[in-house]
Amino acid sequence: MTPPTTVRADGARETGAACAPGTARTAARTLARCRDLVRPSLSAAIERLHPWPGEMAAFSLGWCEVGGGPADGSFEGKGLRQTLAVLSAEAAGAPGESAVAGAVAVELVHTFSLLHDDIMDEDGTRRQRDTVWKAYGTGPAVLAGDALFALAVQTLAETPGPHTAAAVGRLSKTLSGLVRGQAEDLLFVARPWTGPEAVRTDEYRAMAELKTGTLLGCSAALGGLLGGAPARTVAALDRAGRHLGVAFQAVDDLLGIWGDPAVTGKPVHGDLRQRKKTYPVLAALAGQGRHARELSALLNSPQSLDEAGTVRAAALVEACGGRTATLGEARHHLDAARACLLSVPLAPRAACEIEVLLEFLLHRTV
Amino acid sequence: MTPPTTVRADGARETGAACAPGTARTAARTLARCRDLVRPSLSAAIERLHPWPGEMAAFSLGWCEVGGGPADGSFEGKGLRQTLAVLSAEAAGAPGESAVAGAVAVELVHTFSLLHDDIMDEDGTRRQRDTVWKAYGTGPAVLAGDALFALAVQTLAETPGPHTAAAVGRLSKTLSGLVRGQAEDLLFVARPWTGPEAVRTDEYRAMAELKTGTLLGCSAALGGLLGGAPARTVAALDRAGRHLGVAFQAVDDLLGIWGDPAVTGKPVHGDLRQRKKTYPVLAALAGQGRHARELSALLNSPQSLDEAGTVRAAALVEACGGRTATLGEARHHLDAARACLLSVPLAPRAACEIEVLLEFLLHRTV
Repeated sequence: MTPPTTVRADGARETGAACAPGTARTAARTLARCRDLVRPSLSAAIERLHPWPGEMAAFSLGWCEVGGGPADGSFEGKGLRQTLAVLSAEAAGAPGESAVAGAVAVELVHTFSLLHDDIMDEDGTRRQRDTVWKAYGTGPAVLAGDALFALAVQTLAETPGPHTAAAVGRLSKTLSGLVRGQAEDLLFVARPWTGPEAVRTDEYRAMAELKTGTLLGCSAALGGLLGGAPARTVAALDRAGRHLGVAFQAVDDLLGIWGDPAVTGKPVHGDLRQRKKTYPVLAALAGQGRHARELSALLNSPQSLDEAGTVRAAALVEACGGRTATLGEARHHLDAARACLLSVPLAPRAACEIEVLLEFLLHRTV
Repeated sequence: MTPPTTVRADGARETGAACAPGTARTAARTLARCRDLVRPSLSAAIERLHPWPGEMAAFSLGWCEVGGGPADGSFEGKGLRQTLAVLSAEAAGAPGESAVAGAVAVELVHTFSLLHDDIMDEDGTRRQRDTVWKAYGTGPAVLAGDALFALAVQTLAETPGPHTAAAVGRLSKTLSGLVRGQAEDLLFVARPWTGPEAVRTDEYRAMAELKTGTLLGCSAALGGLLGGAPARTVAALDRAGRHLGVAFQAVDDLLGIWGDPAVTGKPVHGDLRQRKKTYPVLAALAGQGRHARELSALLNSPQSLDEAGTVRAAALVEACGGRTATLGEARHHLDAARACLLSVPLAPRAACEIEVLLEFLLHRTV
């Protein structure tokens, strides 16, 4: 059933014409539908890899265990990027199939970036099991990432159609943006918590837009582009995806401190324990009060934070308004994403599926 | 002065119509001319990188020291790939300038592959100084490689002109081939020296064609393509480059055992000391005689090879015909490269510059 939507003279939908309120189950159904549509082509792409990086790629996608045996499916990602590509093509009035090559490319790039970022960040666990470098070694993980990177470009470049060159151009810009975001993120580690050299929240937002927003923007833009949308619509989809990326990162940061370990699979207050520079902490430290001073003293202490220390740090971040500010950041960028989508004519059903997805992402617990 | 060349009815040059014999100095002049032509665009591309991976990229290219201070130029590579791209455009009758975007892309890809391969191979020294991962750390080196990879695709994709899409398609295939070759090479390490699982010379050749030949073939093909050469010429240039790659690897393997340490900057018999599976050793072990058995016993011994052991191993490789076989392999593939070039009509002066370069590569000492 297509939700009712009015369209203005310039083709844009009225802000007031809301979609039927979605549930987590609706969003999950959309994600599953799009993953199912993309899966055969994504599998076929992975099959083209040399068997060794191919196994590592499949492991990283949650499709198999070390050694190649099938996994039970519980390690697979949500498939947000491929879903966004498919829905964007549908929002442009094209069948979701037209976006599949783009969906495969962005999913491969996402897998590449997780793989290499885990090496750079020395993260040994992802989705409750070993990361690729931990399971297979650093050198092989570098190789697997490179193979995925090359495959992403090749898959898209080999897709016949009038939009291929533009799509490859956009993907290549995205790759550079991703790497730039990762460079910024790595450099944040060495910067102080306070003082003139401290990471500001606007710098953090710019990093998040590059590291997370660029690829989500590209996913939406590629879907629109391959679906034959006009340039103005492609640009709006791109901007919506970028805002979504910033919001997504903010929610991730909230989960990294206050997420339920039973659901996220990460330790409680994990990001604080690891002293990650995330939005809630940076926003909290931007305050000048007594709580902010106590928080910075805790974070600057040479000893590692014990249980009591992390509980206290989380309470201080909250007392300084870091949690509220981050929720506001997420909400603001989701609203901005929604405004971008409302600024251009989109097929109502797909546009609503995207909006339900946005809402789900704000309230997700994992 | 253009050397005299006769052209057959089908446009191909006569085999007998030889170029004037080149000297190492002629080849060096050609390399320097092409590097000078490409350098401004290569510099401009590197300038686009985030400053941190940008410095690592410039370090890897031999342009700067750690920290960004200028290097004295002695760490720069020959620039074989960019030269081949420029000469191939000229051989297609176009100005060398038309190949510059392709030359930049292949040089960036080459730099990326050295950077990541050094991590995977755990090589700490290249061109007589620290490799990037040794100087900057593994994580940052992964990042710098990724940045170069992305930049290569972006630079080429952004080049205006009718051949861009085809050029990007070819580059993306090349990237996948490179990674596949590196996967094979890494897997060779764990395989035995003898018996049914031993690496055969034809497997080694296939690996060398992927790991070294694919990018040299792509360099020549991109030059031809961007220079407007017909498909048949582009294909011949590609094949010539692939053969050149196999020959280049064979010469590299000879230098890895018998190269002069004062010139190569690598320890004498270095590849034997590290028990690298290279063509001379694999060819030697393919024999069944007493010397081959002694050699395999040495290579299979659990202790590391001492000075006397490596000297003896080198003598045994030679006695088993490994050195002669590798020289034959290099010569054969250079002849095959030459035959590819002779099979299509090419502008004589550039074709001769390529031939002089081939000869120089066979006799190079570093």
